[in-house]
Amino acid sequence: MRATLIYGAGDVRVEQVPDPRIEQPTDAVVRVLVSCICGSDLHPYHNRAATPAGTTIGHEFIGVVEELGREVTGLAKGDVVIAPFVYSDNTCDFCREGLHTSCRHGGLWNNNGVGGGQAEAVRVPQAAGTLVKVPAGEDSPLLPSLLTLSDVFCTGWHCAVTAAVSQRTTVAVVGDGAVGLSAVLSARLLGAERIILMGRHKDRTDLGREFGATDVVAERGEEGIARVLELTGGDGAHAVLEAVGYPEAYDTALAVTRPGGMLSRVGVPQYEEANVGFARVFFRNITLTGGVAPARAYIGQLLPAVLDGAIEPGRVFDRAVSLDEVPDGYRAMNERKAIKVLIKP
Amino acid sequence: MRATLIYGAGDVRVEQVPDPRIEQPTDAVVRVLVSCICGSDLHPYHNRAATPAGTTIGHEFIGVVEELGREVTGLAKGDVVIAPFVYSDNTCDFCREGLHTSCRHGGLWNNNGVGGGQAEAVRVPQAAGTLVKVPAGEDSPLLPSLLTLSDVFCTGWHCAVTAAVSQRTTVAVVGDGAVGLSAVLSARLLGAERIILMGRHKDRTDLGREFGATDVVAERGEEGIARVLELTGGDGAHAVLEAVGYPEAYDTALAVTRPGGMLSRVGVPQYEEANVGFARVFFRNITLTGGVAPARAYIGQLLPAVLDGAIEPGRVFDRAVSLDEVPDGYRAMNERKAIKVLIKP
Repeated sequence: MRATLIYGAGDVRVEQVPDPRIEQPTDAVVRVLVSCICGSDLHPYHNRAATPAGTTIGHEFIGVVEELGREVTGLAKGDVVIAPFVYSDNTCDFCREGLHTSCRHGGLWNNNGVGGGQAEAVRVPQAAGTLVKVPAGEDSPLLPSLLTLSDVFCTGWHCAVTAAVSQRTTVAVVGDGAVGLSAVLSARLLGAERIILMGRHKDRTDLGREFGATDVVAERGEEGIARVLELTGGDGAHAVLEAVGYPEAYDTALAVTRPGGMLSRVGVPQYEEANVGFARVFFRNITLTGGVAPARAYIGQLLPAVLDGAIEPGRVFDRAVSLDEVPDGYRAMNERKAIKVLIKP
Repeated sequence: MRATLIYGAGDVRVEQVPDPRIEQPTDAVVRVLVSCICGSDLHPYHNRAATPAGTTIGHEFIGVVEELGREVTGLAKGDVVIAPFVYSDNTCDFCREGLHTSCRHGGLWNNNGVGGGQAEAVRVPQAAGTLVKVPAGEDSPLLPSLLTLSDVFCTGWHCAVTAAVSQRTTVAVVGDGAVGLSAVLSARLLGAERIILMGRHKDRTDLGREFGATDVVAERGEEGIARVLELTGGDGAHAVLEAVGYPEAYDTALAVTRPGGMLSRVGVPQYEEANVGFARVFFRNITLTGGVAPARAYIGQLLPAVLDGAIEPGRVFDRAVSLDEVPDGYRAMNERKAIKVLIKP
């Protein structure tokens, strides 16, 4: 079959690889219907050291169950399923607490002999726990929105939930990428009435307004901070949703967090250390939360609103490519010519 | 009157200063009955640059109202009152939210012409909002425990509350100083059944056991981390209460926090930056919380248990000095010969 491999920064190729097959009795093999490129895939696309071997890439997909290991329960061949971006058994203590990303038998795609989502098919470990069957056909127009439950929309949701967004909280979202826009939509679903979106790409912030942003701040750095403070009576927002991952985004997010407020990070941090000192964090009683989203924990709760069309998180996809065109998709996202790229193998 | 001034590292003196007097109609003048030395006072005692002028020090006291500005309501001369370590109006939006440390008209002792608690008397700004009248006489044996509501016990309480300690959480407390011991007592009050205290001073950890610690880990660094992990099935504690403020304590606290857990800091951070990176914080979904405790918000809720003797947080005081002996008190705390020093002017 064909799969996408990354060989180093800027070097993504679609190549023939061995077909995935059942290796453990808890595995399934899933034929991919739709997949996509994640903002976090751009990090290795920027800085991965060149390797002669290449590694598979992609961690978001919806597919059809083609084969099942003998211990997999609750699934049948032909089921249309969502695969979250971390696989998990859905039964261990961490999973029962809703922290599937720390599952005792879980793991990441593209590691330990497991392939990636930007491919024709994938071997899915812990299939009974990982895969969520959805009542949608192989050609359902809902597939793009359902696909966002693999990662991006659940990540925005995790950001808003861990920041305790509610009707009573003002919200500022740092970043107008697909995760930032998902965070806007999540904040609106959680009842926030004031949602300030910081972003400078008009096509993205326009979608942000449709998702629920009440204010858009296009300025960056000190100017952007001043503008958010002005919009919040000088105090900053109760809940600040950081959806970028760069140090500048952290600094901006911190500066616009109200004393006693929550700074939730879901942009994968591209830094090890950051300011958590007396003046900026401690004396202001700011809580730093968020992290890698346990998408598996949220799919059941978010699925109905997607299925009945109440929300359309799939609108973050503004370009679709075939599997062979995936390298073009990376270029488009990297050059900010696309918000998020859908892949139809 | 006499007051304690700090002139630089290791240089604390008790000197004559002008008597405090009403300067604003919202002021009170309070004669100090008991005061004390805080672990956080040791920070300037270690590193304050020498100054020719000196500044007053001390921020925890119980006293008797001697004079009242004409706008002060709810208090009368002769009232015995607790002064929290931040003054506040108790009416602004932050105060109503319970974040008195960010009061719009509040401030810190020993700043902006306001004196400190290690003195014979203090001018109290925003007296109606700041001072809490207590039903105790000037010679009540409860004064030491009531005094802990000024800061240290409320700080331990803030640590446990922001870390969401409950019956279902395992707790690790980093630091066996008076704040760490107060955090142990608070965790027990909040129902925690497993409380691991990390500390290497037996007199302190013995008191910690009486306050509710179920396990004591005397090892430090990697050994201490390994021991806490061993005690928690390899996972770490749900709620880690960091009551020290040094980078090593942060690193230890982080390493013993369970994925999905809370790391609450109330030790005043002696660093600006710390690790909040992918592997140690983000992927493990650890929330960093805590901060400077809004003691004023907690006094009403903790007062009954102190008054009826259900808890004795004042047991952290293991030495008492007169005002003139305050420099000896600093030395004793600095040399770990006393947990916390009470001052009876």
